[in-house]
Amino acid sequence: MVGPEIERLIQLLSRLPGLGPRSARRAALRLVERRETLLIPLGQAMAEAAAKVKTCSVCGNFDTIDPCAICSDPRRDTSQICVVEDVAGLWAMERTGCFRGRYAVLGGLLSALDGIGPEDLGIGALVERASDPVVREVILATPATVEGQTTAHYIADHLAPCQITVSGLAHGVPVGGELDHLDDGTITAALRARRAF
Amino acid sequence: MVGPEIERLIQLLSRLPGLGPRSARRAALRLVERRETLLIPLGQAMAEAAAKVKTCSVCGNFDTIDPCAICSDPRRDTSQICVVEDVAGLWAMERTGCFRGRYAVLGGLLSALDGIGPEDLGIGALVERASDPVVREVILATPATVEGQTTAHYIADHLAPCQITVSGLAHGVPVGGELDHLDDGTITAALRARRAF
Repeated sequence: MVGPEIERLIQLLSRLPGLGPRSARRAALRLVERRETLLIPLGQAMAEAAAKVKTCSVCGNFDTIDPCAICSDPRRDTSQICVVEDVAGLWAMERTGCFRGRYAVLGGLLSALDGIGPEDLGIGALVERASDPVVREVILATPATVEGQTTAHYIADHLAPCQITVSGLAHGVPVGGELDHLDDGTITAALRARRAF
Repeated sequence: MVGPEIERLIQLLSRLPGLGPRSARRAALRLVERRETLLIPLGQAMAEAAAKVKTCSVCGNFDTIDPCAICSDPRRDTSQICVVEDVAGLWAMERTGCFRGRYAVLGGLLSALDGIGPEDLGIGALVERASDPVVREVILATPATVEGQTTAHYIADHLAPCQITVSGLAHGVPVGGELDHLDDGTITAALRARRAF
């Protein structure tokens, strides 16, 4: 009942995170309805992004220049490298505006199940970057999951010979979080890391 | 922190139904990550849809041919016209597979507030189509909302001179629906329209 062009649009849209088959159909319909203001501009924006956006060869961020705007910004602190799982993590850190160093995007986490090893995450290159005398601290900001922490420990072990500070994000009660809604692990971590008031 | 290309992608994606600013960012990231398998094909699918898909001049459906595949299908019953609010409604009817007639897509509902009048919905053209002697029934399948039913009543009034059957979808308990979760209006309608068991 739907032509192959719209069918293909629906099928591709349904592969975006947050869109299931039903909402992909709605999105496709909205696109076709708003041909001039949405469908054509979005198609062009995608073609442009595909042509221009590349992966930064230094940190793994996405940008139209290589090295990316962060790596090539002389005002950013070269002594700190923040290690994140993916570009989403980098964007999340940047939104806070409180980190002024540079990044290393792993592009995944160590996972025996998915066959992801240290070489897939560029951990060798990270150790090499961290060996530069200008680098004084590596902040491990991988997620607070089993795989995230396994990866962090692995990286910390391999950074040991560099003799630099290796730190990790603090665990604790999220700002605005109520104790009743938190898991035991978080409360235990927050209690153990308690600070003078 | 994000280049203008990605920023534009996020901004356009956030205008799709079901995607807010946060999920649009995630979707943009997924697209850039899957450049070859998702970003480029989706951009091309959009360009192709923009170039090929048009509105059927008879019923208002979207298709690459005009009249659309439904209007030009000789196996479909020309004696029945089903009136729907939009193409989403047409697709929903088609999914059931139990209507074999043709359609009229209004492209909206009468709304004094939004300044949508009968001429915007092509109701004149619909009455003209219904005046063809081959047409024997018009099924009003506008939504069961105040605006949907106002529109249906307006159309029914204007179809009166055509001396054809004008019907509407039945109101009642949805299949799988529990009484406790239904509103009073639906239960009242279902009770009034009760049938011999």
